[in-house]
Amino acid sequence: MQLGALLEAVGAAPQGAVPAVDIAGVCALAPGQPGALAWCGSADYLEQARASAAGAVLLAPGLDPAGVPGAVAVEAPQAVFAAIAARFAPDDRPPPGVHPSAVIDPSAELGADVRIGPGVVVGAAAQVGEGSSLDAGCVIGADVRLGAQARVGARVVIAPRCQIGARVLILPGAIIGSRGFGNHHDGQMWREIPQLGSVRIGDDVEIGANTTIDCGALGDTVIGDNVRIDNQCQIAHNVHIGAQTALAAQVGIAGSTHIGAGCMVGGQAGISGHLRIADRVILNGGSVVYQSIAEAGQYGSGSPLLPAPAFRRLIVLLRRLEPRLKTLEKALRRGH
Amino acid sequence: MQLGALLEAVGAAPQGAVPAVDIAGVCALAPGQPGALAWCGSADYLEQARASAAGAVLLAPGLDPAGVPGAVAVEAPQAVFAAIAARFAPDDRPPPGVHPSAVIDPSAELGADVRIGPGVVVGAAAQVGEGSSLDAGCVIGADVRLGAQARVGARVVIAPRCQIGARVLILPGAIIGSRGFGNHHDGQMWREIPQLGSVRIGDDVEIGANTTIDCGALGDTVIGDNVRIDNQCQIAHNVHIGAQTALAAQVGIAGSTHIGAGCMVGGQAGISGHLRIADRVILNGGSVVYQSIAEAGQYGSGSPLLPAPAFRRLIVLLRRLEPRLKTLEKALRRGH
Amino acid sequence: MQLGALLEAVGAAPQGAVPAVDIAGVCALAPGQPGALAWCGSADYLEQARASAAGAVLLAPGLDPAGVPGAVAVEAPQAVFAAIAARFAPDDRPPPGVHPSAVIDPSAELGADVRIGPGVVVGAAAQVGEGSSLDAGCVIGADVRLGAQARVGARVVIAPRCQIGARVLILPGAIIGSRGFGNHHDGQMWREIPQLGSVRIGDDVEIGANTTIDCGALGDTVIGDNVRIDNQCQIAHNVHIGAQTALAAQVGIAGSTHIGAGCMVGGQAGISGHLRIADRVILNGGSVVYQSIAEAGQYGSGSPLLPAPAFRRLIVLLRRLEPRLKTLEKALRRGH
Repeated sequence: MQLGALLEAVGAAPQGAVPAVDIAGVCALAPGQPGALAWCGSADYLEQARASAAGAVLLAPGLDPAGVPGAVAVEAPQAVFAAIAARFAPDDRPPPGVHPSAVIDPSAELGADVRIGPGVVVGAAAQVGEGSSLDAGCVIGADVRLGAQARVGARVVIAPRCQIGARVLILPGAIIGSRGFGNHHDGQMWREIPQLGSVRIGDDVEIGANTTIDCGALGDTVIGDNVRIDNQCQIAHNVHIGAQTALAAQVGIAGSTHIGAGCMVGGQAGISGHLRIADRVILNGGSVVYQSIAEAGQYGSGSPLLPAPAFRRLIVLLRRLEPRLKTLEKALRRGH
Repeated sequence: MQLGALLEAVGAAPQGAVPAVDIAGVCALAPGQPGALAWCGSADYLEQARASAAGAVLLAPGLDPAGVPGAVAVEAPQAVFAAIAARFAPDDRPPPGVHPSAVIDPSAELGADVRIGPGVVVGAAAQVGEGSSLDAGCVIGADVRLGAQARVGARVVIAPRCQIGARVLILPGAIIGSRGFGNHHDGQMWREIPQLGSVRIGDDVEIGANTTIDCGALGDTVIGDNVRIDNQCQIAHNVHIGAQTALAAQVGIAGSTHIGAGCMVGGQAGISGHLRIADRVILNGGSVVYQSIAEAGQYGSGSPLLPAPAFRRLIVLLRRLEPRLKTLEKALRRGH
Repeated sequence: MQLGALLEAVGAAPQGAVPAVDIAGVCALAPGQPGALAWCGSADYLEQARASAAGAVLLAPGLDPAGVPGAVAVEAPQAVFAAIAARFAPDDRPPPGVHPSAVIDPSAELGADVRIGPGVVVGAAAQVGEGSSLDAGCVIGADVRLGAQARVGARVVIAPRCQIGARVLILPGAIIGSRGFGNHHDGQMWREIPQLGSVRIGDDVEIGANTTIDCGALGDTVIGDNVRIDNQCQIAHNVHIGAQTALAAQVGIAGSTHIGAGCMVGGQAGISGHLRIADRVILNGGSVVYQSIAEAGQYGSGSPLLPAPAFRRLIVLLRRLEPRLKTLEKALRRGH
């Protein structure tokens, strides 16, 4: 397909002439791939762009096209690139219809054009929205509502009564709405506190592979619109996550914590229960959060990575830091 | 159902008169829900109780009932609440019997009143105790023994030969008894050390969604009675966990470590291998444990969460802390 | 079986006479088990060896056999032990052939002697190598290439187009090749960046239970030969892991990071994106890595585990460490 036609197909307005090249796919800028399209969003990558083997390169406006193969300037080149890449992406959904090995309760409501793979189970009175796909081995509980155009990966479990919006993408192995970790000790032993809430997930949400989102204890666990959650995250009961917040992999959020909108949480960060995190908070990967955060901004916790002997000395030093500092301060007070 | 009848049904002895209200469910204290029951265990929440929309509120003995809607005093109000909540909890187990799509080895022994969902696989000579349920897509290996009244969630895998007690609750996606991470390097390459042990799990245990518990290398991995394990925990080969210990989500315990009874381990904590942790140890979330802990008590590790610029300065400071402290101490020794 | 025959069967050359004992299994050195074989690799364990109930003990050459039951010296006793243990390991693979409940696309190519369990799904044009086994509930996507003699555990998902070598061991619940976490914010909302790469895995690799390995965004995610990955690890898009590197459980590696060969990464360690880690780097468990590591060696980060009151004081102290140190240094500069 000609580059000009591709740009038109995704609604991009090139600035200046469009090179007359055929584009058969997309590629990384370095090293690039003949006949494929790459993108370059800043001058930092112009050298790579000039050396690229790509057939064409989308450039951010204002970048010098000299020497860049098949250079064409467009606004938001990454967005244009993503839209074009989507046209080359294979469609890995199950074929239209219901695989004969799927077990669909007669009272379930399947929207038009659903795609349901082998071994899928859909429970009583569950609703699967128009155009949604359920990949092999998914288990959709009774009374679940799943919106239109959702894509649910292989072996995902959605527990009864969860409500999930449109255009949601749930990756394989994720578990939505299983029991929250609520127990009380009656003096003799731990006993379950029934978890009677559910999970409500907005539209345009992504949920990563093997991520777990627990149902609420009484009210619901709530995931806002356009939240992006990476693999192996753990969202406990009654957590609320504001719209457009993104969680990198292996993040854990304990019960009843509310995260604002537009936050970005780095990988493996952990957030204690019953906290309030403001909008637009950025947490470094590995951060441990014990207290609410009232102000937008970037935060981190942790310690430096050191060669093992220096690390061991730092550990010893930190164990004895308080008395050493106090001794110094006392001596100074005496001395001066 | 009348509140008085509900209290009687769960064996609770109200102190004083019971308001004549109908209860149709349970709710959180704040904001509460008309016709539903809430609870209040301490004076800290009395204000919420007075403002609650609940139809009735269970109060800890001694709390002032003035202004609390439908107030009734009972011992252990949380326990009474949990017992009543359980009566309103929907039963999400598969229906009684064996779904026709399940694959049950002819030599497996299914107890009376089992409930086996679609696509479940039960291996040779496996025993499933009376009244136990296996939700959709579970895989129960050969020679597994699963006790009575166990509830096994969707897509759980229990490897061959694991022994699991009565009334165990295993949440979706958990994997019990897969291979321990045992390899040796023969000078040329890593080679597997066969993992020949199994997993033994006591009675009344809860195991969280997508949690993994490895089989032992030679002896067994052992989980004591009434242990509570949250989602995405990793229990390595030959770990022993004492009775009534609770692990929050994403905890990792390395091989051959023994954890005592009655411990509470916070989320994302990590415990190295071959350690001994005493009974009644409490670990803060995110703690990293490299050494055995001989004394009961609460422990933590970590560093403060700081705004990013202060965090970066702390990292730099910690890298150079040792020489700076030594310089100060040397100067003081010279000076005084 | 006689010990001498067993040693011969695994190609081990005993040094000196071999005790004429029958061996019916393997056991740990302590306490040992009558009729079973144990091993002892260093003088540190000789006392345990002498007290062992084992029927025979493989000793490293040079260790004093006095008092050790059934002592026999061999080179690399652990390796010999592992080889003998493998002969006693039960074969938990599905029986040869394809279970009737499996759903195999007609265009898939199954090698000779494959073993395919109940409910397995194999997509169009997928290739399963000779002698490989797929346990219950696996989902193998279209165009996957899986080498010979691979063992794939229950409910593993391998996404379309992944290429996996020979003799690979994938434990239950692992997810290979699901979508990388690539999104861009267009000013209005997060939008997906199509992830068009795949995952390439070498020969003799182990992948742990519930581990997730994402497909590449444009190029591939690459796992070298004989890499060993424990449970619940997260490998992001376009990560490269060099041959024979071992990752303990719950490690997370962010996108586009390259890890060298022969590294050992401790449990729960986290490595940021776009870094380069040299060959033969050892990371302590729980390390957080924000920068590339150019030199082989052992590294760690973290802080000491302290009783809760001391921990709280350390947190407070670290928050105010910079001004306290500066005050001291200023005072000293003035004073001396």
